[in-house]
Amino acid sequence: MKNNVVELLMQHRSIRKYQDKEVPEETIETIIRAGQQAAFAYQAYSVLLSRDRKKHPFGAPLYFIPCVDLNKIELIMKKRGWRIRMCDLSAFLLSLQDAAYMAQNIVIAAESFGLGTCYIGSVPYFADKVAERFDLPTKVFPLVGITVGYPGENPPTRPRYPLKFTLFENTYPKLDDEMINDAMKIMDEGYLAQDYYRKAGYIIKLTEKDEENYNFDSYSWTEHISRKLGQWEQSPKILLEQLKKRGFNLLQKSDDKQSIEKE
Amino acid sequence: MKNNVVELLMQHRSIRKYQDKEVPEETIETIIRAGQQAAFAYQAYSVLLSRDRKKHPFGAPLYFIPCVDLNKIELIMKKRGWRIRMCDLSAFLLSLQDAAYMAQNIVIAAESFGLGTCYIGSVPYFADKVAERFDLPTKVFPLVGITVGYPGENPPTRPRYPLKFTLFENTYPKLDDEMINDAMKIMDEGYLAQDYYRKAGYIIKLTEKDEENYNFDSYSWTEHISRKLGQWEQSPKILLEQLKKRGFNLLQKSDDKQSIEKE
Repeated sequence: MKNNVVELLMQHRSIRKYQDKEVPEETIETIIRAGQQAAFAYQAYSVLLSRDRKKHPFGAPLYFIPCVDLNKIELIMKKRGWRIRMCDLSAFLLSLQDAAYMAQNIVIAAESFGLGTCYIGSVPYFADKVAERFDLPTKVFPLVGITVGYPGENPPTRPRYPLKFTLFENTYPKLDDEMINDAMKIMDEGYLAQDYYRKAGYIIKLTEKDEENYNFDSYSWTEHISRKLGQWEQSPKILLEQLKKRGFNLLQKSDDKQSIEKE
Repeated sequence: MKNNVVELLMQHRSIRKYQDKEVPEETIETIIRAGQQAAFAYQAYSVLLSRDRKKHPFGAPLYFIPCVDLNKIELIMKKRGWRIRMCDLSAFLLSLQDAAYMAQNIVIAAESFGLGTCYIGSVPYFADKVAERFDLPTKVFPLVGITVGYPGENPPTRPRYPLKFTLFENTYPKLDDEMINDAMKIMDEGYLAQDYYRKAGYIIKLTEKDEENYNFDSYSWTEHISRKLGQWEQSPKILLEQLKKRGFNLLQKSDDKQSIEKE
């Protein structure tokens, strides 16, 4: 069962190499406008744009950074005699979704014009650097980067878990060995068949004791994500500090129960 | 500048009334499969499905609940002799994006088949109820609900901020009164022109001192979101508890630095 929208969605793969070809201004505006039309709770986002290829991942012509943005809402509320008293955790959880739904629309709209994209998930870990470069006020938190440009490569789509390992009707099932092994096999054999990690030239190093027993003939997706989730970012300190610098304290209760005086 | 994918994205509006007409099984599977093809960091999500209309918001025929799911990854990692040592905050931030990008693909794929959708953002606040009903293991957190079905209403698309209040190239600008007023005007006049809140029959009550000075001729979007962000969820307690019940402690450092023995 297909239509050309579903076909486009099914063709998605990240693009990490770009042509040296400019994206028309009108295309950029259309993409962002389509992003904005995603559902929202508060429209609590902004999108930063850089065209300085040298500074972008993969030298992409365009680099968008969707941000959680409570600053604009604060300014609007101030004009109405209100201030934000919702705790940061609640506001952040909903605003992050606003920003993410918009970001995904941006990706789809970009791909509909033949552009390639890649999400850069590490942006929150150097939010302070982004804030400095783009002169961000507090209450604006860079969530993720999106590189955009005409593809300079044509990789295949990557495998996904089987549907039955993803969609659960009525009850979350007991995931038995067979289901887990099936899912692992589809992912690992799929990535190996595409020679993904060899082409990427990338095996995550073991940071503790273990001897390396993998090479590009055996290292695949489940080992890759295991090494990430098993070794990286064991403390929330960096992220909490980055959030705090940007004015988000996820634990704090609203400190002031009084609304400001109406102007 | 248009194509039929962008046209579909631009036609999005939430649907809160549904026909009593079943969605074909194949359509459901195609929608979820298209959801899965979104970019991911860890595929750290699952989608719950209920067809029990009586229990759904707006009596929608289908109710999907995209969840952050670290349980499946834990099971896979265990088979490889690993355990998750990434802190919950980092894992949650990336998994939430995995789930959100997938969710938005679900919405778009559904709309491409003529279905209507509505996000239900309150799901995290009763995550325990969802966990009970769907028998969720720990490390699975219901992020958001999506009602799906053939539309029983045909509302117009809703206004959005002007592009120049959303897309910022190189620098986050000083947002002066004119820009703020323009954005407020477009949103407020746009919702009033559609008689949105009168049709919804909904004005958020003032919970403190203030006398109500608004009616359906004057109450609009910026007042509405001001009342939400100015009055609701002033403490993170409920959300932190719901997260904790589901096995997520956003503040905690990984408590165990040792990987489990390889099997």
